[in-house]
Amino acid sequence: MADPRFFTVCGPFTLKDLAELSQSTPAEGADLGAVFSDVAPLENAGADQVSFLDNRKYAAAFQASKAGLCVVSPDMADKAPQGMALLLSSDPYRAYARIAQAFYPVPVPEPWVAPTACIDASATVGEGCRIEPGVVIGAGAEIGKRCRIGANVVIGTGVVLGDDCIIGANATLSHALVGMRVNIYPGARIGQDGFGFAMGPQGHLKVPQLGRVVIGNGVEIGANSTIDRGAGPDTVIGDGCMIDNLVQIGHNVQLGRGCVIVAQVGISGSTRFGDFVAAGGQAGITGHLKIGSGARIAAQSGVMRDVAPGETVGGAPAMPMNDWLRQTAMLGKMARKK
Amino acid sequence: MADPRFFTVCGPFTLKDLAELSQSTPAEGADLGAVFSDVAPLENAGADQVSFLDNRKYAAAFQASKAGLCVVSPDMADKAPQGMALLLSSDPYRAYARIAQAFYPVPVPEPWVAPTACIDASATVGEGCRIEPGVVIGAGAEIGKRCRIGANVVIGTGVVLGDDCIIGANATLSHALVGMRVNIYPGARIGQDGFGFAMGPQGHLKVPQLGRVVIGNGVEIGANSTIDRGAGPDTVIGDGCMIDNLVQIGHNVQLGRGCVIVAQVGISGSTRFGDFVAAGGQAGITGHLKIGSGARIAAQSGVMRDVAPGETVGGAPAMPMNDWLRQTAMLGKMARKK
Amino acid sequence: MADPRFFTVCGPFTLKDLAELSQSTPAEGADLGAVFSDVAPLENAGADQVSFLDNRKYAAAFQASKAGLCVVSPDMADKAPQGMALLLSSDPYRAYARIAQAFYPVPVPEPWVAPTACIDASATVGEGCRIEPGVVIGAGAEIGKRCRIGANVVIGTGVVLGDDCIIGANATLSHALVGMRVNIYPGARIGQDGFGFAMGPQGHLKVPQLGRVVIGNGVEIGANSTIDRGAGPDTVIGDGCMIDNLVQIGHNVQLGRGCVIVAQVGISGSTRFGDFVAAGGQAGITGHLKIGSGARIAAQSGVMRDVAPGETVGGAPAMPMNDWLRQTAMLGKMARKK
Repeated sequence: MADPRFFTVCGPFTLKDLAELSQSTPAEGADLGAVFSDVAPLENAGADQVSFLDNRKYAAAFQASKAGLCVVSPDMADKAPQGMALLLSSDPYRAYARIAQAFYPVPVPEPWVAPTACIDASATVGEGCRIEPGVVIGAGAEIGKRCRIGANVVIGTGVVLGDDCIIGANATLSHALVGMRVNIYPGARIGQDGFGFAMGPQGHLKVPQLGRVVIGNGVEIGANSTIDRGAGPDTVIGDGCMIDNLVQIGHNVQLGRGCVIVAQVGISGSTRFGDFVAAGGQAGITGHLKIGSGARIAAQSGVMRDVAPGETVGGAPAMPMNDWLRQTAMLGKMARKK
Repeated sequence: MADPRFFTVCGPFTLKDLAELSQSTPAEGADLGAVFSDVAPLENAGADQVSFLDNRKYAAAFQASKAGLCVVSPDMADKAPQGMALLLSSDPYRAYARIAQAFYPVPVPEPWVAPTACIDASATVGEGCRIEPGVVIGAGAEIGKRCRIGANVVIGTGVVLGDDCIIGANATLSHALVGMRVNIYPGARIGQDGFGFAMGPQGHLKVPQLGRVVIGNGVEIGANSTIDRGAGPDTVIGDGCMIDNLVQIGHNVQLGRGCVIVAQVGISGSTRFGDFVAAGGQAGITGHLKIGSGARIAAQSGVMRDVAPGETVGGAPAMPMNDWLRQTAMLGKMARKK
Repeated sequence: MADPRFFTVCGPFTLKDLAELSQSTPAEGADLGAVFSDVAPLENAGADQVSFLDNRKYAAAFQASKAGLCVVSPDMADKAPQGMALLLSSDPYRAYARIAQAFYPVPVPEPWVAPTACIDASATVGEGCRIEPGVVIGAGAEIGKRCRIGANVVIGTGVVLGDDCIIGANATLSHALVGMRVNIYPGARIGQDGFGFAMGPQGHLKVPQLGRVVIGNGVEIGANSTIDRGAGPDTVIGDGCMIDNLVQIGHNVQLGRGCVIVAQVGISGSTRFGDFVAAGGQAGITGHLKIGSGARIAAQSGVMRDVAPGETVGGAPAMPMNDWLRQTAMLGKMARKK
C-alpha cells in the first residue's frame, strides 16, 4: 500500500470494473465480482491487490507473486502462479496505468490563494486555482482554471497558462504561452534568454532574444529542465511531449507531438523534431538539424546530421543503429585479440 | 514583431542610423533615409523590418525573404532578392546584434524594494536597485547600483555584487564576489560547497571548502548551472565568460577571459582554462588540467589531458580534432564492410 | 586565510593537538608545542598555517611551500623544504580533513523561525531548528532537531527529516523520508514523480508514482540534482552516499552505502548499486541493472549491462577498463597510421 502520509487511495474496484476501465480482458474463469483495494509491485502485492508484468526481466517475480490480480500480455498467462487472477492486454503497462489512475487519481487542487503570494493587480487567475505561498505572478499574466501553482514559483509578465496546469515548487516561467494540462516539475526554467551572442575576441555581444516558448497541451517538463525562449522565432513544444529531468532545450527548437526526451538530453538551437521522436538519456543533438517523425536516438548518442523519419541512430557521431552495434562488436573483438 | 506582452520595441531608426550603430556599410544605392521599425527573422520580416543572414544554411530563406533591410556579408550581396536593402559586414551576426539591441535595449529596472523581500539590516543595497518579492539578502552583503534581483533569489552572508547585475528568479549565491554587468539566470547555484571529501570504507569525510567564487565583469551564467566555491583557492570566472544552462563547474576551476561554455558541460575541480576557450555541449573535462587560450573542445568530448593553446580536440578520450575525424571515418568504413 | 566575510576560524591549535585530532604522526624532531592558527593551500600558506600534499601533481608546490606544517604521506617526507614541520599519515587528505574541520567546524544554526516562513499547523519542528525566510512546510511534515532549512525551501506534506539536516536554499522535497545529518544542496529536487508512462501513438499515459524517496544518514545531495520518487517500490539512497551536482537518479533506483556519484551522472530507473560504488562524471547507467559493491564506473561511460562487484568499467558501451584502454590505444594508433 502506498504510504498514507503521501497518497490517498480510492476504490475498491471489482475485477469487472478494472477490466473495463483498463480496456483489458479477464482471463477465462476469473471471478468478475472479486474486489481489489489497491495496486502494488509484484513482490509486495497481496491477495486484494493488483500488479502487472511488463518487462520480462521480472518474470520470476511474477511467478513468485502473491498478487490477487495481475495485468499481463496473453502469452505470459500460462506462467501465472496458481490462484492469481489475470487481466490480459497487449499493452499491460498502459492497462495498469489506467488501473493505477483509478486508485490514485490526480487530486483536484483545493482552491486557495496564499496570503504571501504576490499577484500583480493586472494578472488574471481562473476559478478553482490553488496559488501556494511565495508565488509571484507578474503583470498581465493569465492563469487558467483549476491550476495548481506550487510554492515560490515565479511567473513573469504576460505569461499565459491554460486550464488544469500543475507548476511544481520553485519553477520559473517567463515569455511563455502554455497550453492545458501541462505539468511543469519543480525547478524547471522556462523562457529565459537563449545562448545567443556574436562571439569575438573583442568580447561576445549579446543578441536580444525576442521569441517565446510555446507549449502545447498535455506536456510534462521534468525537474530542473531548462527551455530557452526563441531568438526571433519561438521555441515550440508540441502536444503530449514528455520531457524528463535536467534536459536542455535551446532557442528556436521545435518538438512535434508526443516526443519523449529522457533525462539530461541536450538539444541545440533551431533543431526541429517531428512527432513521436524518442531521445535516450544524455543524448546530444547539435543545432539546425531535422529529426524526422518516429526517429529514435539511443542514449548518449551525439547526433550531428539530420535523421530520417523512423530511423534509429546510436553512437557519437550518431550512425544507423545497426552500424553502431556492428562497430562496437567489432571493436570489442579487436581489443580482446591484441 | 516581438510579442508586445513580453517586449517593448524602440525606434524607428533610419538606415543611416542602423549602419552607424552596427558599424556596417550600406550597399551601393541604399536609401539612407529609409526608416525601419523592428527586427524579424528572415521568413517573417516585412518591408519595414531588419533581418540578417549569418548561417549559409538559411541562404534560401534569405533569397525568399521580404525583409526591407538585411545585414549580410559582402559575398552574399549579389544573392539578395530584388528590392531588399543591404548592410554589409564581415561579421553580420555582430552587426545584427547591435541593431537588435537598439530596437530592444535591456530595460533599466524600475527601482523598488518589495515589501516581502527580507534584507538583513547590515546589508547594503545600491541606488536604483529593483529587489523583487521573496528575495532574501544576508548579513553584510553588498549589492551594487541598478541591480535587478529576481523574485525568491537568495543571496548569502557577505556576498558582493557589482553594479548593473541581473540575478534571475530563484537563483542562489553564497561565498561569492561578483563583478559588474553580470547576468545570472534563473535557478543558477553559485558558491555552495565543492565535492571535496576524503573517501574511505570507514565513511567519506567532508573537507571544509574555504574558498570563494570570484566572477569578473560582463559574465553570463545560464539557468540551473552550478558553480562550486573553491576548496582553499578560489573558483574564478574571468571577464566576459558566457556560460550556458546546466553547466557544472567544480571547485578551484579557473576560467580566463571570454570563455564560451555550452550547455551541460562539466569541468572538474582545479582545471584551468586560458582565455577564449570554447567548450561544446556536454563535453567533460577532468580535474587538474590546463586548457590553453583559444583551445576548442568539441561537443561531448572527454578531455583527460592538457590541451595546448589554440588546439582543437574531439572524442573521448579527446584527441586532436583531425585524428578524431579520421578515426570516426575509418570506423564507419570498417563497420560497413563487415 | 579564508575570507572572514564568509568564514570564522577557530583555534589556534598546537602541533600535538593537530596530530591527535588528525590521527597522524609528527615527523621526528617536530616541536609538539608549536602553534598553528589556520589552514591554507600550499602556495599561500605561511609559517603559522597548515597545508597538505595528497596529489603528487602538486609536489613542486609542496617543495616551494612556506607552510609551517604540512600533512604528507611518509614517503614524501624527505622532499619537504627546510624548516617545514610534518605530520605523517597514510591518508594525508583524510588527516587534513580532520584538521580543517577543527579550524572550521560546521556552524551550529542559531535557532530561529522566520516570520515569513509558512509552516502548516500540523507539521512538527524539532528544537534548535533554523527556518529561514520564505520556507514552506506542508501538513504533517516532521522536522528533526537542529535542522537548518534554507530560505525559500519547500517541504511537502508528510515529509520526514531527521536531526541535524541542512537543506540548501530553494531546494524542494516531497514524498521523502530523510535520515540524520543529511545535507541537501541548493536547488536539489527530491521526491517528484518519476518518468513513468505507457508510451503509445494514441498519447503517453502517465502511471501514478506511488513510492517514496528514502534517504539514509550522513548523505549529501548536490546542487540542482534530481531524485525521483519510486513508482511503487521506493527510491533508496544508502547511508553516507555522496552525490554531486546535477545528478539524475530515476525512480526505484537503490544506492547502497557510501556510493560516490560525480556531477552530471544519470542513473535510470530500477537500477541497483551495491555499497561504495563510484561513478565518474557524466556517466550514464541504463535501467534495471545491478552494479556490484565496490564497482567503479569511469567518467562518461555508458553502462548497459550488470557490473560485477569490484569491477572497473569504462567506455560506451562500458567494458572492462583494461579492454577500454586497449581499445582506445589501438584506435589511436590506427588513425595515426592512415
